[in-house]
Amino acid sequence: MPKNILIVGGVALGPKAACRCKRLAPDAAVTVIDENRYISYGGCGIPYYVSGEVNSLDDLRATPYHTVRDPEFFRTMKDVTVRTQTRALSIDRAAKKLLVRDLVSGQEENLPYDKLLLATGARPRIPPVEGRDLEGVFSLTRLEAAETIRTACRNGAVSKAVIVGGGFIGLEAAVALADMWGVKVSVVEMADHLLPGALSPDLARMAGHDCQSHGVDVFTSEKVVRILGKDGAVCGVTTEKRKLLCELVIFAAGFIPNSDLAREAGLKVTSFGAVPVDEHMRTSDADIYAGGDCASIKNIITGQDGYLPLGSMANRQGRVIGTNLVGGSATFPGYVGTWAVKLFDLSFCGAGLTVESAKKAAFDAIGVSVEQLDRAHFYPEKSMMGLSLVVDRKDGRVLGIQGAGPDGDTLKARVDAVAGLLQYAKPSVADISNLEVGYAPPFAAAMDIVNAVANVTENVLAGRFQPVTADAFMDMWINRTKNGVFFIDARPAAAGKAVEAKQPDWHSIPLEEIGARIAEVPKDKPVALICNTGLRAYDGVLVLARNGVKNVVNAMGGMQALKKMGLNPV
Amino acid sequence: MPKNILIVGGVALGPKAACRCKRLAPDAAVTVIDENRYISYGGCGIPYYVSGEVNSLDDLRATPYHTVRDPEFFRTMKDVTVRTQTRALSIDRAAKKLLVRDLVSGQEENLPYDKLLLATGARPRIPPVEGRDLEGVFSLTRLEAAETIRTACRNGAVSKAVIVGGGFIGLEAAVALADMWGVKVSVVEMADHLLPGALSPDLARMAGHDCQSHGVDVFTSEKVVRILGKDGAVCGVTTEKRKLLCELVIFAAGFIPNSDLAREAGLKVTSFGAVPVDEHMRTSDADIYAGGDCASIKNIITGQDGYLPLGSMANRQGRVIGTNLVGGSATFPGYVGTWAVKLFDLSFCGAGLTVESAKKAAFDAIGVSVEQLDRAHFYPEKSMMGLSLVVDRKDGRVLGIQGAGPDGDTLKARVDAVAGLLQYAKPSVADISNLEVGYAPPFAAAMDIVNAVANVTENVLAGRFQPVTADAFMDMWINRTKNGVFFIDARPAAAGKAVEAKQPDWHSIPLEEIGARIAEVPKDKPVALICNTGLRAYDGVLVLARNGVKNVVNAMGGMQALKKMGLNPV
Repeated sequence: MPKNILIVGGVALGPKAACRCKRLAPDAAVTVIDENRYISYGGCGIPYYVSGEVNSLDDLRATPYHTVRDPEFFRTMKDVTVRTQTRALSIDRAAKKLLVRDLVSGQEENLPYDKLLLATGARPRIPPVEGRDLEGVFSLTRLEAAETIRTACRNGAVSKAVIVGGGFIGLEAAVALADMWGVKVSVVEMADHLLPGALSPDLARMAGHDCQSHGVDVFTSEKVVRILGKDGAVCGVTTEKRKLLCELVIFAAGFIPNSDLAREAGLKVTSFGAVPVDEHMRTSDADIYAGGDCASIKNIITGQDGYLPLGSMANRQGRVIGTNLVGGSATFPGYVGTWAVKLFDLSFCGAGLTVESAKKAAFDAIGVSVEQLDRAHFYPEKSMMGLSLVVDRKDGRVLGIQGAGPDGDTLKARVDAVAGLLQYAKPSVADISNLEVGYAPPFAAAMDIVNAVANVTENVLAGRFQPVTADAFMDMWINRTKNGVFFIDARPAAAGKAVEAKQPDWHSIPLEEIGARIAEVPKDKPVALICNTGLRAYDGVLVLARNGVKNVVNAMGGMQALKKMGLNPV
Repeated sequence: MPKNILIVGGVALGPKAACRCKRLAPDAAVTVIDENRYISYGGCGIPYYVSGEVNSLDDLRATPYHTVRDPEFFRTMKDVTVRTQTRALSIDRAAKKLLVRDLVSGQEENLPYDKLLLATGARPRIPPVEGRDLEGVFSLTRLEAAETIRTACRNGAVSKAVIVGGGFIGLEAAVALADMWGVKVSVVEMADHLLPGALSPDLARMAGHDCQSHGVDVFTSEKVVRILGKDGAVCGVTTEKRKLLCELVIFAAGFIPNSDLAREAGLKVTSFGAVPVDEHMRTSDADIYAGGDCASIKNIITGQDGYLPLGSMANRQGRVIGTNLVGGSATFPGYVGTWAVKLFDLSFCGAGLTVESAKKAAFDAIGVSVEQLDRAHFYPEKSMMGLSLVVDRKDGRVLGIQGAGPDGDTLKARVDAVAGLLQYAKPSVADISNLEVGYAPPFAAAMDIVNAVANVTENVLAGRFQPVTADAFMDMWINRTKNGVFFIDARPAAAGKAVEAKQPDWHSIPLEEIGARIAEVPKDKPVALICNTGLRAYDGVLVLARNGVKNVVNAMGGMQALKKMGLNPV
């Protein structure tokens, strides 16, 4: 049984592993080193502190029982030694010693270890642009920054802000500033859509529309080139395309794993700078473990080394490592990439690969989307959810799922159900068609949307109809004079006629009437069909096919998807 | 390719299979026979029609696009022939003919088939008691009964009702009558707790308390022996123990599969009266399929023939059968038993086996419960969820999960995530500890309750502490003069002191103080520890153990579980 356990990093994974060690082996000497003053805080809560939804910074440092997790707490309650403001300088692997420096006294010291854990986390990726050190330029990883930003908002010192990066943290910050403080926010994202890597462009368009319709400007495919200052404080940002005035800049452009300590000690480090670990969370040195934001674990779907810096991953890995540090043999299976984010009117969730990330990993991937109510259609409370299933065309293997909807909890329920299968099974489309999610009218439809999206996917894979994303449908509509496409709105007449009245090229032919009115549909032109949610259009395709009209595409998610994207045929 | 497809039963599975057939094989002749007038309705919505939440019976018969699914709809829209008020009398398997009778004209006819589907459903189990035919005695399976009950409630003709059966439908009916119409409801359940088979007694106690605190009387371990009448109408019910006056009786005591047609044709039928099918949903005759409420499918966890009459199962099976009726080869994997029910303040969900049903299936099962917030503890909106994991002590295999909480959606999300694994993987406790559910503060805790309940279970399996259910803890408390147990409330002082002030045997020793106040804890007595949710008590057990106090039990779910059960130490 190891006597001396040394842990570098005291935010999420380090303390978790430390406590687990002590529970299993009360006699072990466990020491946590951290170079900062605050330890063991919920960094994921920072946007909610900025917004004011979380009252006090202590709430982010407290247990659910309102005890603040400071060094004294760990000493008296957990028998764990915590040394803050102490920097780990280097590892002597042969002698099994860690050289540390007390940042207050400047004194250096060699600490012996039997097992060492690197929980060094990650630092925000800040592009090397001029002005990045100006006052008013922040990242959202430190409690101190959160405090400063919130105070500035409360004092009315921030009327305009620029957020660099349209990922999870960037958008959470945008919501916090715009929704709660009325700040005019611009999000600048280098990629061609928001939440790159997490969402496909069509779903990202819904996220963009949700931001824009709440006053947040979104600039994609655009890079910040300079931060502008006046008297040492930020006063604006220039991108490749424009100048944005602001009093606050937040960098939320991803993370760089803190792996210098590992690299300098000769441990393996991936090309993207993280420390790869095996399924026991062990580095290339059997006495050194790593986990959380500094480590690389296996992507279960692609089988490749990957990176998922999330507090929940750190917590779960911390328990596994804690077990192993004191001689246990727990394993961590890797990750599939499950996430959730709440924006303004919509929430977004996903698990596994997007079409784009699946193609990068050499899968022959397609994505199929539907919109459907999240409960029985006759139940009074309900909302319209969109789900998109990503599958391998070759064998129908499910690679990922993403979705959007006003009710984040019901959306997350569907995504989490598939996430578990991605983690522990290799689900096929048929497995999701038959997925036994709980049913009662207040909670789900008898044919739940998670089953329905798989059913539609099966029909697409079998070539029974040809889907297009709602935004691609819209592009066809806009270019209708060039492409000569004939448009059919298969919704009930009242809905379709309202559009037709303004746009004569928009043909309202309700599903029930297609057969009888088939003479109105040209046989020599491509046809594009839309209904309310995409579920009904399949029947329309069948009726058209029976009548010899076979060159038909079908808008996935229908008018509901268009609406969430802010697109309108009128 | 089969020409003639005959389907007996037009409620849920029959129409679903019929439409799937026609989509795949437009040339097939598909006929649906049903002896009733109404077909294709959402029977699961009946309690919500009774309550008034669903406005019109047509809503239960309509598609999400408000088209009523009557025979005309099926003829014109689906090219499916529907013959209502037509009873299937017998199957001539050798000649492949079905003898039917038109209930209006009385005429009999032999219909030939290539493939036959039995979707005959189930009928309510009505005990053979005197008075069961009186006016005012109903079951909740027919739209006509729903109409009559709602009209009677609206007219003020029902002040008291007795519901026979405390399962899903019985409790949904109780909520509809009590909550929406102010009817005084009594639920009489034969088993010793509500939702038998679905919940263990401790969680069922929470369901009972939720009913009782909303004015619904619950009588368990009690049988109805007679329905009392006056002038042909019901006026009361006598059980083995009491007489209950009422103007309405609803039988919700389970279902009997309608399998006479199959049995008389010489098809295999299980001991509980359902038609067993293979994974293609085929009966013992390769040309006859069965599914839905009349069929028996495999319980995936026990491997035994089982029965799960739910609309969602019927819908999913209907699609599989539709594929196979026209020459496809789709499979249905069986069931694990996933369910959800919304009561008054609490919802309940579950998947797989309870401790009791697992023991019946010869597993060495235990259940471990925790209570935890459903979101990050620092996030403002959140609710306290209880989850109970059922595992095999022998190998740590997860057999089931059940839970209770005020937010049914967040609860269902956790249960569905595990349900999928029960269906397609054989999850271990460690798999649930590492389950990658989505995380962000508005949706989950970084160590989510579904992970936490597995972590606690692992500790219990490893013998690290000895749990008792909250109600068993309460029994110990009530019998404290006999058993000599020493009680410790490990919550923060304010909460514990309030109880201690009224009950001197209740010792408020906050977790943080146990070490320092160890002299107050007797070493020669059994100790029972309680905290707020059960998560904190584990640390208390460790502190006690370090100080030589080893005979300690720990109340699972803590004070939060007691509260949901309506139990109070004061």
